[in-house]
Amino acid sequence: MPSVLVAGASGFAGALAADLIQRHPDFELAAVTARSDVGRPLHELYPRYRVPLVLEELDLDRHAGVDAAIVAYPHAAAAPVVAGLRRRGVRVVDLSADFRLRDLATYERWYGAHPEPALIAEAVYGLTELHRYAIAAAELVANPGCFPTGALLGLAPLARAGLIADVVIDAKTGISGSGRAPTWETHFSSAGENVTPYKVDGHRHTPEMEEQLAGLGAPSLAVQFVPHLVPLDQGELMSCYVTPTRAVEPAELAALYEDAYAGERFVELADAPPSMRDVRETNMCRIQALRAEHTGKLLVFSVVDNLWKAPPRRRSRT
Amino acid sequence: MPSVLVAGASGFAGALAADLIQRHPDFELAAVTARSDVGRPLHELYPRYRVPLVLEELDLDRHAGVDAAIVAYPHAAAAPVVAGLRRRGVRVVDLSADFRLRDLATYERWYGAHPEPALIAEAVYGLTELHRYAIAAAELVANPGCFPTGALLGLAPLARAGLIADVVIDAKTGISGSGRAPTWETHFSSAGENVTPYKVDGHRHTPEMEEQLAGLGAPSLAVQFVPHLVPLDQGELMSCYVTPTRAVEPAELAALYEDAYAGERFVELADAPPSMRDVRETNMCRIQALRAEHTGKLLVFSVVDNLWKAPPRRRSRT
Amino acid sequence: MPSVLVAGASGFAGALAADLIQRHPDFELAAVTARSDVGRPLHELYPRYRVPLVLEELDLDRHAGVDAAIVAYPHAAAAPVVAGLRRRGVRVVDLSADFRLRDLATYERWYGAHPEPALIAEAVYGLTELHRYAIAAAELVANPGCFPTGALLGLAPLARAGLIADVVIDAKTGISGSGRAPTWETHFSSAGENVTPYKVDGHRHTPEMEEQLAGLGAPSLAVQFVPHLVPLDQGELMSCYVTPTRAVEPAELAALYEDAYAGERFVELADAPPSMRDVRETNMCRIQALRAEHTGKLLVFSVVDNLWKAPPRRRSRT
Amino acid sequence: MPSVLVAGASGFAGALAADLIQRHPDFELAAVTARSDVGRPLHELYPRYRVPLVLEELDLDRHAGVDAAIVAYPHAAAAPVVAGLRRRGVRVVDLSADFRLRDLATYERWYGAHPEPALIAEAVYGLTELHRYAIAAAELVANPGCFPTGALLGLAPLARAGLIADVVIDAKTGISGSGRAPTWETHFSSAGENVTPYKVDGHRHTPEMEEQLAGLGAPSLAVQFVPHLVPLDQGELMSCYVTPTRAVEPAELAALYEDAYAGERFVELADAPPSMRDVRETNMCRIQALRAEHTGKLLVFSVVDNLWKAPPRRRSRT
Repeated sequence: MPSVLVAGASGFAGALAADLIQRHPDFELAAVTARSDVGRPLHELYPRYRVPLVLEELDLDRHAGVDAAIVAYPHAAAAPVVAGLRRRGVRVVDLSADFRLRDLATYERWYGAHPEPALIAEAVYGLTELHRYAIAAAELVANPGCFPTGALLGLAPLARAGLIADVVIDAKTGISGSGRAPTWETHFSSAGENVTPYKVDGHRHTPEMEEQLAGLGAPSLAVQFVPHLVPLDQGELMSCYVTPTRAVEPAELAALYEDAYAGERFVELADAPPSMRDVRETNMCRIQALRAEHTGKLLVFSVVDNLWKAPPRRRSRT
Repeated sequence: MPSVLVAGASGFAGALAADLIQRHPDFELAAVTARSDVGRPLHELYPRYRVPLVLEELDLDRHAGVDAAIVAYPHAAAAPVVAGLRRRGVRVVDLSADFRLRDLATYERWYGAHPEPALIAEAVYGLTELHRYAIAAAELVANPGCFPTGALLGLAPLARAGLIADVVIDAKTGISGSGRAPTWETHFSSAGENVTPYKVDGHRHTPEMEEQLAGLGAPSLAVQFVPHLVPLDQGELMSCYVTPTRAVEPAELAALYEDAYAGERFVELADAPPSMRDVRETNMCRIQALRAEHTGKLLVFSVVDNLWKAPPRRRSRT
Repeated sequence: MPSVLVAGASGFAGALAADLIQRHPDFELAAVTARSDVGRPLHELYPRYRVPLVLEELDLDRHAGVDAAIVAYPHAAAAPVVAGLRRRGVRVVDLSADFRLRDLATYERWYGAHPEPALIAEAVYGLTELHRYAIAAAELVANPGCFPTGALLGLAPLARAGLIADVVIDAKTGISGSGRAPTWETHFSSAGENVTPYKVDGHRHTPEMEEQLAGLGAPSLAVQFVPHLVPLDQGELMSCYVTPTRAVEPAELAALYEDAYAGERFVELADAPPSMRDVRETNMCRIQALRAEHTGKLLVFSVVDNLWKAPPRRRSRT
Repeated sequence: MPSVLVAGASGFAGALAADLIQRHPDFELAAVTARSDVGRPLHELYPRYRVPLVLEELDLDRHAGVDAAIVAYPHAAAAPVVAGLRRRGVRVVDLSADFRLRDLATYERWYGAHPEPALIAEAVYGLTELHRYAIAAAELVANPGCFPTGALLGLAPLARAGLIADVVIDAKTGISGSGRAPTWETHFSSAGENVTPYKVDGHRHTPEMEEQLAGLGAPSLAVQFVPHLVPLDQGELMSCYVTPTRAVEPAELAALYEDAYAGERFVELADAPPSMRDVRETNMCRIQALRAEHTGKLLVFSVVDNLWKAPPRRRSRT
């Protein structure tokens, strides 16, 4: 069974990844490393995840014996770890933003200098429904940002059909999206009973959406994206308001989405507005697309759980 | 001191209105009536509001001795009560939608037949910052809908300047906006840890916004408005995405808002995104307006507490 | 693979049971029945549970071909269904209170007349850690109440050792414990930002705890039990304050719990106060027991997720 | 009008005190000081409180010109500030624990060395319903802890009547009780959807309750007190389980509470379990006392808003 290292397992995403691998029927969790809390069992930090492994300091030479690694570091800190693992032949899924953008100039405009630009060409953007075959063959997978996941699955059928003239994406995200570090913004007495827009002119997931949408057939689109913090733990809703390039009939719209997602296990189409709870603690993306009669705009609502991914279930063979 | 009747005091808005009048230094709460729970003290239904009056059945002849009335009935049910009170010479603030729209055809398209069309001409739209002098002289005030309050205060300066070519309004509202009736949508186990768009093509507050924006200088605008239910009790955030008719400089934008709201006690302008908590249990509307550099769109965020209005405080004269 | 019927699948507990059986590697979900929403796929009522089966009206003759049934009806309504299934040879797990109490007089004092008293003798109280072997052999299992589950696992080691002279149990429960029916108590605007004690003198889970504790070695104990509604969805915390029959040293206390739960997969002992989140969406019960130095009382805190039970995971055999 | 200084106005309690004074018809807010955020308007930290004053560094000589001061420092840090103000003749309300306990040895056992023991004798415990006349005459008032406020108002009638043989106090508190500093415990993703007992053997409010109950007539009582963090912002519920010294009839119990609180504006007695929401953003304490028939224990439930105190309203004189 392939062995997997999780590097950066003390944050929300890394800890969940470790739990997921440990419970997955097809993988073995080899080790968990972190930059803080070294020496503590992961179970102590996250009692709900029953991962008994002790957090270790990352030692590339020692840990590189694994078949694959999931790297859960912040951007810029991730790239050198990824590079070290790749040089030792380890297949890597990187959860940071470091390898999501193919255009180096775009990366540097939004994130600053890139520590390992040579590796960018090797990376595959890890949204399965868009790049399934490339991902299967990839040595380095750049896991999509949480907002782009829902937005791209929601908008891909329209982008491919050349229907997006303009788009406003208004996102609502639970507090876990802000990470585990305690701040005033994540304090219960600040976040509870509250809603706040943030990064109102320029969230870093904007260029990631634009680059992927361009690749699908919507070049030179300037996406207007604004996320809002809402008082719940896990979940993201993307409300997309598309000004279409031409009038679109409801039947055509429905056909576009059905064609795009027929046979996809993790995408489901809905006739009614999707709720975050519909997908909580699942791997699903639930999407409604409709034409607003009053304005002629196309509305697309999509929900994902930003945090949780459940392992597959296997039938026992009795 | 003027005496005030609250008709329909068992719902959220009516009960709060009764509490507000009772605590107001300049009014006397004469009676509270309701269609259910007659005979129970309002205090029993709403322990937090310490209104000891007992809910009575409305008797127009008996209750019409008051100086003014606040009517908190659902639309269509409100109009006949308002008409009865007006015929007896009572000044009325109507909290329903029945007299908000000046155009009868628009009303009937969104709400159905109007029970008292003759009264429409008499009504003044009760958004103080827009219609202060007309309200002061009015015999019948149509209280604005909760969403239009925040949206119109946020967009009025742009509408007056002829700057709105297109607008998307994405609203987030607490659960109390759905009223006191228990439904699956307002059940804690449905609404908690959840966000859901609703009435995605055609919320009835749309024509109210359009009619008022037209009056301000944005005629024939089709507003794209979608509300979302978020897991908190009180509060509404309006996120407005405006495609401008021409390029607007930040300084011009700031001047527009400062001019519009100089001297207004209940509107405050902010340099950072406003939060629902900033205005909780107050009468304030807090607004940020900015130009998005990336897209050139104008973004306006405004927050109000949909439920609460605090009475003014008076200094004692010692 | 054994086939399982879930009768009463439209409520929280029945729906979850259906999801659990469907995802369980060792069972086949044969049918789901309900008294309302017949003809709708369960998936429509609970999008998060991806159970595609359509709710049917229960027809004992037709449905009794299954190997086992889970009955999720309210008390008194459950017993006749259970009896009908038992007469047809189906093994039953009953989620109601109808077969939890062995003493008919106690049942009738707290619940009223019993519809099927003859079946009581056959039932086994389904708390695995206390009655594992009897459950394995049983034809009729009475699933424990949510509060007794946490309380009994928390108190069993003390009851067996004859250490409980008096006990106060103060429970905190999420809103899902009140069921799916919308009421004012489950309305978000009532339950949110709130805590309320309820059934303060006489919750029906009291005799269930007393009868089981008596069976363990604490006869004629009058349990003081008060539940409190807290603003969250799933989870229950039992805070148990025990006046001991004699002074107990911390080491003795620790040994009692370690002996009781050594080898139990679903009970874990903690050195720090357990949190509801520690067990969310798991099958675990987490317990801390300590002696309060200041008073000499024994404190036991235990948490369970009242709603969720996760199916076991199986490794694939590659 | 008396002028008031608030020292330590950047924390939850101090900021609320400043807002309260500013809105109070009978006082003038002279200045606000803090140890952090000096130079920023308080309004910026707490937009909801519309206090325009700028936070200053405390300068005893300069600030001591006020008539009174509210000191909102942590314990041990408060005492020297209080002493400095008292030496300059300023009347002080101290919100910390430093002057709540009359017995120095008790203070030092629970809090460590006392910085200003000589001042203890001068302090009056500021629970108005228990010490009204002493408070009116006091130069130094020690504001009660949040838990003791509810617990003492709930238990005082029983203590005076000599009815408390033993008492368990199980408290539920909102997150604001933990203060404004961001920690993992106050992080939304930790505190939300959660309940956790804390300081399970020895919260510092225990001796404060014991000393006051002793003064009322319940000497040498060892109070078993355990607080629990619940996922809401403001509010505290105290569930008190009293083993009585003798059997108490319901009528006697009711008379005790009615006599104790007749004429008290801020205490109300209830026939049903009180909810936190009943008193939210008010100055009220709502109490239910009853005898549990099943056990003979006396149950007392009391709720207060730990944070909010509303200023009185004055009628205008027209």
